[in-house]
Amino acid sequence: MKKFEEKTYESETIYKGKIVQLDIDSVTLPDGQTSKRELIRHPGAVAVIALTEEGKMVCVEQYRKPMEKSIVEIPAGKLEPNEAPKPCALRELEEETGYTSDDLEFVTSFYTSPGFADEIVHLYFTDKIRPLENQPEGDEDEFVELIELTVEEAEALEKEERIHDAKTAYAILYLKLRNAL
Amino acid sequence: MKKFEEKTYESETIYKGKIVQLDIDSVTLPDGQTSKRELIRHPGAVAVIALTEEGKMVCVEQYRKPMEKSIVEIPAGKLEPNEAPKPCALRELEEETGYTSDDLEFVTSFYTSPGFADEIVHLYFTDKIRPLENQPEGDEDEFVELIELTVEEAEALEKEERIHDAKTAYAILYLKLRNAL
Repeated sequence: MKKFEEKTYESETIYKGKIVQLDIDSVTLPDGQTSKRELIRHPGAVAVIALTEEGKMVCVEQYRKPMEKSIVEIPAGKLEPNEAPKPCALRELEEETGYTSDDLEFVTSFYTSPGFADEIVHLYFTDKIRPLENQPEGDEDEFVELIELTVEEAEALEKEERIHDAKTAYAILYLKLRNAL
Repeated sequence: MKKFEEKTYESETIYKGKIVQLDIDSVTLPDGQTSKRELIRHPGAVAVIALTEEGKMVCVEQYRKPMEKSIVEIPAGKLEPNEAPKPCALRELEEETGYTSDDLEFVTSFYTSPGFADEIVHLYFTDKIRPLENQPEGDEDEFVELIELTVEEAEALEKEERIHDAKTAYAILYLKLRNAL
């Protein structure tokens, strides 16, 4: 769908980093006027809603620099160049939690900030996980701690704003709905 | 919570735009090593899950430059400087849909991309809306079209990836759960 399309007549890359790229696009609007769009380019990400045998949600706590606090999230990570979402989801689950699975099921995908960023999150679900025999190493500059939560515990952490991101908020609703149906 | 805190020893602002600011922070990690963090600063946003009398979800379709397509979303918008989230949510509901409400209820808030951005979305719900007598003007460079959807219609659009963003995906689960309980 291209309704209200904004046609680009100029594009300037301001910054190209390890994770994000910032472009400024000059566009023609549907009414013929022009405007500028600030665009964050991101490789995309995956996240996994993983349940233990006891039905606990597998989460990780990590420090998030943008908000200067540590929060509890479902395992997630960035896509490597040319990496498909599902193997990436499995890799991140293994690296961040030490669990693996033969049974990742696609849930949905969503753009996180459609106004200014092209980051997309591909979300998977599994209730069939097992501990890896050899724990893999994660990213060298990533420090994460495994936490397993009932849905009620996760909701309590959300109220305290220790769970405080879109994909994990989505995961909590997903599990509540799964339990309700 | 400051677990695994990353202490900043240098911060550089690369770009300061109308919507985003890009900073590169140099940090000391918990193990004493150093690293760089690319950080997108954003003023924060609001979004509204609004139901018509018939129980339809009020949405808007608009072109989203980062993904070069138009998508259907719940009404949303950026916080103005010093604006509180709730009045902002009401303003965006009015500007984008022509509906108003005396009864916006806080649902939750979440960071959209905790790895690289500090954008937070404050989410509200109302099932008590009425058309404004005088339709307000929206942002001059924003073109949106009102669409009202049943939850089933919204889910169908999500499968087609015409609904394709985190807050609207969350809204669909929120309404499904509300109907299920």
